[in-house]
Amino acid sequence: MNARSREVRLTRLGEGGRESVEDMAAVEDPMEIRLGDAPLAVTMRTPGDDEDLVRGFLLTEGILLSPEEITGIRRVDEGRVSVRLRPGLQIDPEQFRRNMFVSSSCGICGKASIEQVHLMAGPAPAFRVEVDVVQALTNELRKSQPTFDATGGLHAAGVYTIGGEPLSVREDVGRHNAVDKAIGGASLVSWPLPPSILVVSGRQSFEIVQKAAVVGIGGIVGVSAPSSLAIDLAQQIGMLLVGFSRGGACNVYSGVERLSGAGDEA
Amino acid sequence: MNARSREVRLTRLGEGGRESVEDMAAVEDPMEIRLGDAPLAVTMRTPGDDEDLVRGFLLTEGILLSPEEITGIRRVDEGRVSVRLRPGLQIDPEQFRRNMFVSSSCGICGKASIEQVHLMAGPAPAFRVEVDVVQALTNELRKSQPTFDATGGLHAAGVYTIGGEPLSVREDVGRHNAVDKAIGGASLVSWPLPPSILVVSGRQSFEIVQKAAVVGIGGIVGVSAPSSLAIDLAQQIGMLLVGFSRGGACNVYSGVERLSGAGDEA
Repeated sequence: MNARSREVRLTRLGEGGRESVEDMAAVEDPMEIRLGDAPLAVTMRTPGDDEDLVRGFLLTEGILLSPEEITGIRRVDEGRVSVRLRPGLQIDPEQFRRNMFVSSSCGICGKASIEQVHLMAGPAPAFRVEVDVVQALTNELRKSQPTFDATGGLHAAGVYTIGGEPLSVREDVGRHNAVDKAIGGASLVSWPLPPSILVVSGRQSFEIVQKAAVVGIGGIVGVSAPSSLAIDLAQQIGMLLVGFSRGGACNVYSGVERLSGAGDEA
Repeated sequence: MNARSREVRLTRLGEGGRESVEDMAAVEDPMEIRLGDAPLAVTMRTPGDDEDLVRGFLLTEGILLSPEEITGIRRVDEGRVSVRLRPGLQIDPEQFRRNMFVSSSCGICGKASIEQVHLMAGPAPAFRVEVDVVQALTNELRKSQPTFDATGGLHAAGVYTIGGEPLSVREDVGRHNAVDKAIGGASLVSWPLPPSILVVSGRQSFEIVQKAAVVGIGGIVGVSAPSSLAIDLAQQIGMLLVGFSRGGACNVYSGVERLSGAGDEA
């Protein structure tokens, strides 16, 4: 349950056509940090070293001044840990509370997170898209990154039609911000969005899939790796999820049935 | 004021010794999103396309269902925008409020953010470190990433002594989590931390420098790019900040006086 990586089955598209392979994905799963019984923060983390994460979070956020202020860290359930502080230490969780809107009354775990998105978003809209279009998208995005070209340090995201036409391409230091900007830009071009694909320069985490799902985007393509929870969510809502899309090859983690052309019959 | 990148002066360390050069850094600056007068979220973003960011954030977080629910987006001041919603639309900001603890009564801007860290952290602790040690650190970190090796998709962070010895190296899907885990682990080895350097696989953003500063870490080294605000903060507290540390070369954005050896006299 607490593995840091997990086996996933995916379809590899390369020069040799389609191939079903197994690979490893980094595990992502939510954890709630509590001070006593009071919820303080929810973070999407890779399981393992959870006590280090709690200790480091409390120190680096300036909530505690020393690890010795912690007298115990207890696991409440799969997705919750409770921190016991030295008697007499007064911390107001309200002052530091963050990201609590991720929290769910039915429990903190990947499954609950996916159910929450299901409630908000429903299944991904149906469409088919040409493999060649999908495989060209990361190069298309790369061509629209003037600030990355100048600085070498910026994320980009773009919303493209299934014909490969850009609706909106934006840059930001923040992975999530780049996605929000691109979707915000696209929403002015056409709303509801037409059948479209989100292309990202950074990792495809749960929250990126969630953001796309909530606005009815049916596919995500990136040069980097998706997390386990991103794959789970994409599969459950039937979204196309493509990672490691580089040099004419890519990994399809979900929604391979949406791809037409190039090895279609394989 | 709203440029996406900014010129920075840095010291390039390579085979030819030390060289002072100018380069561009991606701009990072906080922005508060308000619903009317009610603060909703603060995000560290790259200026530009701010209205797209606001619109996309409200849609992808499920706070609004359509861009037409927004009747106006107004700039309150440099770091704040206010969203006017369609009359009759009831949104409770409390339900969605996030990351508000970044907020500051003296204004939302990079300067206020830096002052806030100053109050919490003070100047970085003094030490000198050998250039060779610094340049070896990103390779050292890379050797300690078993889950990245398996998945190709995980961040890592390590706290190292100025002799180059690891105190704690950790992995996580989240850039901030990896840093929190590494610092949490190191805090159990020695607290207060000895003169030490944080090594990161991901971007050196303001929040990463802030986390290191708050726990008294005097240097950060990474393979990737620092943001403008990360550089500003590092310079103001006298922290060593090294980016693009690859293949025996690196960029020193702050604290070059802390480096000894290899071109010391240049």
